[in-house]
Amino acid sequence: MRYFRATVEYDGTDFFGFQVQPGVPTIQGALEEAIARVTTEKTLITAAGRTDTGVHARGQVIAFPSSWKRDTEELLRAINAVLPEAIALLDLEEVEESFHPRYSARRREYRYFLHCRAVRSPLRLRYSLHVPYALDIAAMNEVAHSIVGVHDFATFGDPTSGESTVREVFTSRWEQRGEEWVYVVEANGFLRRMVRTLVTAQLWVGSGRWLPEDFQAALAAHDRSLSPPPAEPRGLHLWKVTY
Amino acid sequence: MRYFRATVEYDGTDFFGFQVQPGVPTIQGALEEAIARVTTEKTLITAAGRTDTGVHARGQVIAFPSSWKRDTEELLRAINAVLPEAIALLDLEEVEESFHPRYSARRREYRYFLHCRAVRSPLRLRYSLHVPYALDIAAMNEVAHSIVGVHDFATFGDPTSGESTVREVFTSRWEQRGEEWVYVVEANGFLRRMVRTLVTAQLWVGSGRWLPEDFQAALAAHDRSLSPPPAEPRGLHLWKVTY
Repeated sequence: MRYFRATVEYDGTDFFGFQVQPGVPTIQGALEEAIARVTTEKTLITAAGRTDTGVHARGQVIAFPSSWKRDTEELLRAINAVLPEAIALLDLEEVEESFHPRYSARRREYRYFLHCRAVRSPLRLRYSLHVPYALDIAAMNEVAHSIVGVHDFATFGDPTSGESTVREVFTSRWEQRGEEWVYVVEANGFLRRMVRTLVTAQLWVGSGRWLPEDFQAALAAHDRSLSPPPAEPRGLHLWKVTY
Repeated sequence: MRYFRATVEYDGTDFFGFQVQPGVPTIQGALEEAIARVTTEKTLITAAGRTDTGVHARGQVIAFPSSWKRDTEELLRAINAVLPEAIALLDLEEVEESFHPRYSARRREYRYFLHCRAVRSPLRLRYSLHVPYALDIAAMNEVAHSIVGVHDFATFGDPTSGESTVREVFTSRWEQRGEEWVYVVEANGFLRRMVRTLVTAQLWVGSGRWLPEDFQAALAAHDRSLSPPPAEPRGLHLWKVTY
């Protein structure tokens, strides 16, 4: 049996998230179906992150076993040919079986895109959140920088059962490119909904609904009930996984 | 009766083109329905260009009469609130009734986007054409520059009945930004399918299927049967109309 690793890009709009669920289209389901069609074996894949419904990926990482006999390049092309247009393998390589996309990952980077102007942009809405009100980027960056380091993010995300709510954040900053704003956040891992909830919290700070002190108090309280709701999934992109 | 002019952005993917057709969603139909809902009058709009099925617009221009009594800003907001998310008015102003979006236009600019790399990008496919093969941008720009000026484009587009096939092209060039290539073309007007057909012709030159001389011979022949097929609509954007 050989073992393969791939980087996957997808438009998550029309999928019910990454993880297989019966009766609805999922990224995992589409990938497993495509690989099975090409290799004629039933295949289970593992992935670096289980993105939620509507979340996109530029650099999801998956792995799967296969008894494929021929060239890796040929397997890549064949899988891409049968995948839906909204999903594509960007690369494919043979790896050791000890490689695990989730457990071997050291850093995960997400990016959340805002489009800031009075009127919505239909050509950007699929991949970013429209923000028609003014934002104080300095206040947002103050909050963004404050979460770098090791923190307990119990307020801002949902652990799977028994999971710690402590994460180490390596990068957390807002970048502005004209009307497009990007929140870049890299950590050793994220709780479920954590990035989108942090985005709303920072939008609350940027719009004056919260003071930076309110954010700090919510973070320190480790109380999920103090959390703002998660921002819409359309702006969120799983950007890069580092091993 | 007042008369209004608006700039319109839209994602054309899910519409059967601009012009109203019975029984299918069109940009014009959605705009007229939204305006009628807000103003409670049946409204007919005119537009600078009738984009084909699947073609997008960043700067379509429309005009319509209305007996709307209140503020223009309020009308803009109300129309955007009832329009589908895929369409938005970027601005709205009151103009003289002599203004006609099509006949008053002096220049129209279209842009056609390519995404050039081996593997398709699901996050770019909606708004650009994926080109997995190598292209010679110098040869493409040679051809692009050669159509600047007054030419008979009978080979490359479909005139409406009685319409001349002569157009004056002001700008025609390829720009490269990493994997993203853009064909920028501005003229006093375009024949139906002309931009997309010119794009395919230039892709043929860029990939070596045609020599630049083959392009020149096809242009000079004024023979529609020598035309390549139009490139997919997904890459085409009505960018700007100048009055």
